[in-house]
Amino acid sequence: MSQKIPRIEIVAVGSELLTSHFQDTDSPYIVTQLEKLGLTPAFRTILSDEEEILRQGLQDALQRSELCFIIGGLGPTEDDRTREILASLLKKKLIFHEEILTSIRQRFARRGLTMPPSNLKQAYVIEGSQILPNHHGTAPGQWLEERQKIIVLLPGPPQELQPMFATYVRPRLERWRIYQVYQARLKLTGITESQIEEKIKDLYPSSGQPQLTTLAYPGQIEILISAQSQNSLEEAQEKVNQMVDKLRSRLGAYIFTTQGEALEEVVGQLLRQRGETLAVAESCTGGLLGHRLTNIPGSSDYFRLGTVVYSNEAKIKLLGVSPETLAKYGAVSQEVAREMALGLQKLAGTTHTLAITGIAGPGGGTPSKPVGLVYTARAGEDGCQVIKNQFLGARELVKFQSSQKALEMLWRYLTQLQE
Amino acid sequence: MSQKIPRIEIVAVGSELLTSHFQDTDSPYIVTQLEKLGLTPAFRTILSDEEEILRQGLQDALQRSELCFIIGGLGPTEDDRTREILASLLKKKLIFHEEILTSIRQRFARRGLTMPPSNLKQAYVIEGSQILPNHHGTAPGQWLEERQKIIVLLPGPPQELQPMFATYVRPRLERWRIYQVYQARLKLTGITESQIEEKIKDLYPSSGQPQLTTLAYPGQIEILISAQSQNSLEEAQEKVNQMVDKLRSRLGAYIFTTQGEALEEVVGQLLRQRGETLAVAESCTGGLLGHRLTNIPGSSDYFRLGTVVYSNEAKIKLLGVSPETLAKYGAVSQEVAREMALGLQKLAGTTHTLAITGIAGPGGGTPSKPVGLVYTARAGEDGCQVIKNQFLGARELVKFQSSQKALEMLWRYLTQLQE
Repeated sequence: MSQKIPRIEIVAVGSELLTSHFQDTDSPYIVTQLEKLGLTPAFRTILSDEEEILRQGLQDALQRSELCFIIGGLGPTEDDRTREILASLLKKKLIFHEEILTSIRQRFARRGLTMPPSNLKQAYVIEGSQILPNHHGTAPGQWLEERQKIIVLLPGPPQELQPMFATYVRPRLERWRIYQVYQARLKLTGITESQIEEKIKDLYPSSGQPQLTTLAYPGQIEILISAQSQNSLEEAQEKVNQMVDKLRSRLGAYIFTTQGEALEEVVGQLLRQRGETLAVAESCTGGLLGHRLTNIPGSSDYFRLGTVVYSNEAKIKLLGVSPETLAKYGAVSQEVAREMALGLQKLAGTTHTLAITGIAGPGGGTPSKPVGLVYTARAGEDGCQVIKNQFLGARELVKFQSSQKALEMLWRYLTQLQE
Repeated sequence: MSQKIPRIEIVAVGSELLTSHFQDTDSPYIVTQLEKLGLTPAFRTILSDEEEILRQGLQDALQRSELCFIIGGLGPTEDDRTREILASLLKKKLIFHEEILTSIRQRFARRGLTMPPSNLKQAYVIEGSQILPNHHGTAPGQWLEERQKIIVLLPGPPQELQPMFATYVRPRLERWRIYQVYQARLKLTGITESQIEEKIKDLYPSSGQPQLTTLAYPGQIEILISAQSQNSLEEAQEKVNQMVDKLRSRLGAYIFTTQGEALEEVVGQLLRQRGETLAVAESCTGGLLGHRLTNIPGSSDYFRLGTVVYSNEAKIKLLGVSPETLAKYGAVSQEVAREMALGLQKLAGTTHTLAITGIAGPGGGTPSKPVGLVYTARAGEDGCQVIKNQFLGARELVKFQSSQKALEMLWRYLTQLQE
């Protein structure tokens, strides 16, 4: 049986987190970890280092919340005041721990350095705290249970906080795991958010279970489906799977994954299964399509080569695009896209080729060929297919949507899914 | 003369902001806007929609802070409780405004719709508030001055909040602008954060003016320098410029910009000035270098072509790398990097070429050629130069550092800056 769920607050300490130059990445990490246990914080707070502010913010958190994660301000400098202020608010002493000092000294010694005196204060721990060892830095974490409040002190650097959380904090939170959470992550392409809404609006569960969340990017929509159960993972899983089946029956021709992989990964898996190969020719995307494909470990199994044919000369020399076609139709045309894909087929000898030519902007548009006009082509055993696209958005968005559409063409061909 | 600066808190309301699926983008926007006036918040808070939590969080904010930006929870649904709870905390009435209702109705009418009854509550404003018109949505903002506290209510959708802030909030904040802020953004490559620390630690101003902030990424370090003046922008500018000069005298050989541009942009400007051209050959970076170069608008002025020669066959066929060299030294070798850069020179006929071959990981490493081993080559009129690198980090980090090192080689050659 689990215990009553505490009211949770995450507090990140650091003046730099209140500027535009730094982001608090620790709190989102803890949110994600809590979600895995079915827990949600009630408050998230960022506090400046200033003594008066820090004291006020910590005091409010201790009063209104029952489980407080307090991140940062445990370093050796004068600005690091979390330990001292918290002890004073709780009316507790700071206790010196010889074994912490030894471990800090050893850490410096391993790098051939002597511990500076300023690190001494990191060997002090609030009276009654359990020590959470830091295997990746000098400041240990602390777990303090006190008058029905639980206070967890964690170091700010993510490379220290994350392993500490996984090893020493996560197990201590298991007592509150009442929900089993199961989640599916659908990704769709070739359809807009409002088209999806039209098709599935009657499926939104009135009870809020399972929960549906839609995230829209240009060229890609995600639908997150999650459910809880007080009994078992299987029960939660079942609720999610039923919804996935319903969504698939309405949207199947656009869903390329239910597990959250990127489109380049899904396409890569299909190619690997079939023992087939791919080459790409890019003009306006400038290498992005190759970059995305090669972000997937092991992509050398199927990805053979790419060409970034930014100039007309490169299109002619590398891919054998005909100068007459370029002169007659222009570089951004159905004909040139076709000759790129077919020329690449000859050059690379791969099962499939993809080609992209278009105007990414902001310059280079004309009334008849506006910014965002992009031709995507796919060639294979069946011949060559070209699609004319008109994308919206800034340069990088046009590049992303172009690479996404080329991948979608290959995905549709490999899966035989019709739009 | 400016007034005493209030203690500022930014409060974002919404349970979705406490999940891993949504991010609060409004608070960072307001932080950036405040910075332009020299203002910094003391607290940032995210509150769930739950009535008890919201009430507690708003009450704490009103008690501890003097200027509160409260974002979201102004919509038409049951979960939108900010307006009501705030009125109750302040013991104020909500006053109906006919002209707001009219404008909401007109908004629906323009889309051919009738206003649903639930939107009626958006026409209510806290007694004494100044109305901040919403030209991009239905919920107006509110500006309330009350017992030395200022409360600013803003709608959550960024496309509504941002224009409202710029037009109606920003001018009202001018009374606290006491500092003129001036900032330089240095970017360095080819040097580590600790090497920089060694070289400049005596330059950190004891008074905290100008302020130095260092941001380290693999392959790139940024130093932000900002200063304030109570008198004029020029005075702040002068403080920053003096520090930039000092840093340049110590670190000049690594600073590629003082204005924050990306390295691919700086290299592109140099090429454009000289009327020279570039082609790239990529193996382990898979198109990233071409992608980065072509993210810069107008890059077709100097960027001609790229090849992504992922397979040995592609290296041979496209770049004329010799099969013997590949067999003798392996694809990841100084010799192959050289032949790639020189082969590309022949193929592309550009002033400069860059080539990259290496092991991005996580697979493919051996004891003698570990993951992260990357050869970067540059060829030009002077011949060919190859550098052996051992990068650390995950696949995408190795790819980024490799592309950065290739760009650095060309930058050093074009500027004649020696490491």
